[in-house]
Amino acid sequence: MKKSDKLVVIGGDAAGMSAASKVRRVQKDREIVVFERGRHTSYAACGMPYYIAGQVGDVDRLIARNPETFRKNQNIDVKVHHEVIRIDTTDNIVMVHDLENGKEFSEAYGELLIATGAVPVKPELPGMDAKGVFSLSILQTGINVYKFIENIKPQTAVIVGGGYIGIEMAEALLERGMKVSLVDMAPQVMATMDPEMAGLITDYMRNEGVEVYLEEKLERLEKGVGGRVSGVVTDKQKLKADLVIIGMGVRPNSDLAKEAGIELGVRNAIRVNKKMQTSVPGVWAAGDCSESHHLITGEPAFIALGTVASKHGVTAGTNISGGDAEFPGVLGTAITKFRDLEIARTGLSEKEAKSLSIECKTAQIEARTRSGYYPGSATVTVKLVVEEASGRLLGGQIVGMQGAGKRIDTIATALTAGMTARNIMDLDLSYAPPFSPVWDPVQIAARKLV
Amino acid sequence: MKKSDKLVVIGGDAAGMSAASKVRRVQKDREIVVFERGRHTSYAACGMPYYIAGQVGDVDRLIARNPETFRKNQNIDVKVHHEVIRIDTTDNIVMVHDLENGKEFSEAYGELLIATGAVPVKPELPGMDAKGVFSLSILQTGINVYKFIENIKPQTAVIVGGGYIGIEMAEALLERGMKVSLVDMAPQVMATMDPEMAGLITDYMRNEGVEVYLEEKLERLEKGVGGRVSGVVTDKQKLKADLVIIGMGVRPNSDLAKEAGIELGVRNAIRVNKKMQTSVPGVWAAGDCSESHHLITGEPAFIALGTVASKHGVTAGTNISGGDAEFPGVLGTAITKFRDLEIARTGLSEKEAKSLSIECKTAQIEARTRSGYYPGSATVTVKLVVEEASGRLLGGQIVGMQGAGKRIDTIATALTAGMTARNIMDLDLSYAPPFSPVWDPVQIAARKLV
Repeated sequence: MKKSDKLVVIGGDAAGMSAASKVRRVQKDREIVVFERGRHTSYAACGMPYYIAGQVGDVDRLIARNPETFRKNQNIDVKVHHEVIRIDTTDNIVMVHDLENGKEFSEAYGELLIATGAVPVKPELPGMDAKGVFSLSILQTGINVYKFIENIKPQTAVIVGGGYIGIEMAEALLERGMKVSLVDMAPQVMATMDPEMAGLITDYMRNEGVEVYLEEKLERLEKGVGGRVSGVVTDKQKLKADLVIIGMGVRPNSDLAKEAGIELGVRNAIRVNKKMQTSVPGVWAAGDCSESHHLITGEPAFIALGTVASKHGVTAGTNISGGDAEFPGVLGTAITKFRDLEIARTGLSEKEAKSLSIECKTAQIEARTRSGYYPGSATVTVKLVVEEASGRLLGGQIVGMQGAGKRIDTIATALTAGMTARNIMDLDLSYAPPFSPVWDPVQIAARKLV
Repeated sequence: MKKSDKLVVIGGDAAGMSAASKVRRVQKDREIVVFERGRHTSYAACGMPYYIAGQVGDVDRLIARNPETFRKNQNIDVKVHHEVIRIDTTDNIVMVHDLENGKEFSEAYGELLIATGAVPVKPELPGMDAKGVFSLSILQTGINVYKFIENIKPQTAVIVGGGYIGIEMAEALLERGMKVSLVDMAPQVMATMDPEMAGLITDYMRNEGVEVYLEEKLERLEKGVGGRVSGVVTDKQKLKADLVIIGMGVRPNSDLAKEAGIELGVRNAIRVNKKMQTSVPGVWAAGDCSESHHLITGEPAFIALGTVASKHGVTAGTNISGGDAEFPGVLGTAITKFRDLEIARTGLSEKEAKSLSIECKTAQIEARTRSGYYPGSATVTVKLVVEEASGRLLGGQIVGMQGAGKRIDTIATALTAGMTARNIMDLDLSYAPPFSPVWDPVQIAARKLV
């Protein structure tokens, strides 16, 4: 019997569908089957807070391409509401649970791509099963939050966790008119940034009306009428809550892979090489369930972001269809905003550099987003971290008003090129009064280091 | 007699004052004299259109530091209304004309820095001496335009020249309620960009109410009541005009240097090496009157921009005060806007690459400034130019709505690092719905090239 070259993909979001689409572009006739346990494919998970805030309108706008389109236009057989429950790498089959009719069946594969994403971290605490307690993961969870707000009209919300999701949801729920509190067990929000930069964010959020409680640990949730959440109890206080968002980070959804004997790596993400191959020949992994390698440390890293997932998918798809591609690596570049405050980071923070015992120097400066005399000119704070000995850039962080955040891309590009602070100072960057001071804030920070 | 180490600087704007300030920081006691023929020092020439538009308020806001401050805080002897009329490099003296009392005197120097800036190109045509015809050069010219508008209340304005100044003045005069026409003899506005990118700008300007006339050559100006301008006559038509702005570019103000036997270079800019030394020992030049070297072509270039002048000044000042610095070179990075349309460029355009006989490939893409579903998401067009053989980036151009323009810095940084389109595609750039699509528009353009 000829070995099947059927490609089976587990997971129908960014990584899985990018890979499947890439394979289809190269191999017109290959059989491609995608199993997705949810209802939706290729959706913008990052858009959920803005949808919940009421800024997007119809939820369909978050969906880049639906299963029907994949089937019709690309001949990719996407089966939604189908959960893969076991992988057998000896016989090259997956066991699938059809969530609509409850039946199980096996599907043989020639090659397998695991793109199962990440799942929210949810501690097992009393009351976590109360109605009105949500984490954001698949699109349906965003829809559920939206519907809950429409139906129940919560007045008070508590967000547990001050990372990207926590900050974006704080903005969204303020937008919906709620009194919003945010609780984090760490002494700062935004664990990926240094404390003094995170402090600027906390100050701004408080100023905009969010109650931010740091160094407080969630202990339990209280239930009220109809099993609905009514309060959040921390180790320090009790907060009233009609709605609770758990944004305590995510972990790779790698249980299936682990049970199949596929090697896991950093933080239990599926171990992959730069080609996105797992430890088992013919089995690939991509997206939030799998590792990346960090361009500065050279070490494996777990970065759950849409940009990375999309690049993972294209890399895997290229290799699966006979090409030769390597994932280029990550810097951990990320951006978000809270109302008018833009927040961005790339590379290593000072904290991270120190934890890796890298001797470093830093500069943190405050400048203006535009020429001081130009309307709308506002504050931006830039922090750069360089290696002490070589002066080579290690990372950067930006917190500031309109136009501040996207400057992180200049730093990320300089970082990738191995530039020093001196090199950054020497860059011929753009200037006009509506966009920048004569020396761009990024260069002002570099100049302070030289 | 001990040779004087007095530093004489001709010109008190960005380059001259950056250099003088740098020297003072290093050499606390050195005698530093600056001659400035105008009234103002260290002003933001780039801010004049916004001042004229009425967006800045008091003109003093454009002045970073005035002569008194330089004298008091930095012990730099700035003499305004003093025009240097001759340089004698044999005897190391300059002849100075005191414009207030009409007297001339000579001043000896140990070292001399020429920072005389650039002057507007003004063709000798009938009627150019009419009242209400302006070029923007020193700050006083901006003040004169502002006063003219306040006093005369012009209804119709004609701008001759569709470069940065022309476009910014078109915005400013629309803002002041005038009917604005713009005339350019070239078949496009923005000569530093490729025609199809420039076309987007023309379309937008026309849509906003500016009458743009291309391939029309200025022939003469008509005078009306009191010697005031009343019309502009081109080779194709006659336009009514109560106010005329001549924005036909600038040329280096290098006549003094030339008469002193100092070597000139490209487009008559003062020839300098990377240290900003002229052909005469002890004589330096910096800013818009002098050459730069272009990082892509390796050739001398004339780039009259505040960012460059400021870097020139710091480089010259470092060397004059005994340090060792080299000007890092230019890419011709520039940015401007017309109302909500942001316009930016760096490196070589396709036109320029072809004129240098560089075989190149290009990609031009249209994308969104933000995720499509996010409020305010709008169009951005990116063009990248790469070397055909190597794939190495040569330049980029961006035209688009809010958030589009500053992306040019990512391209400028990649360009400086010698990156290829593939390298750009692989960059770990920032993404969140309010800032970008998952693939940044710059990367979408790079991907098209790969």
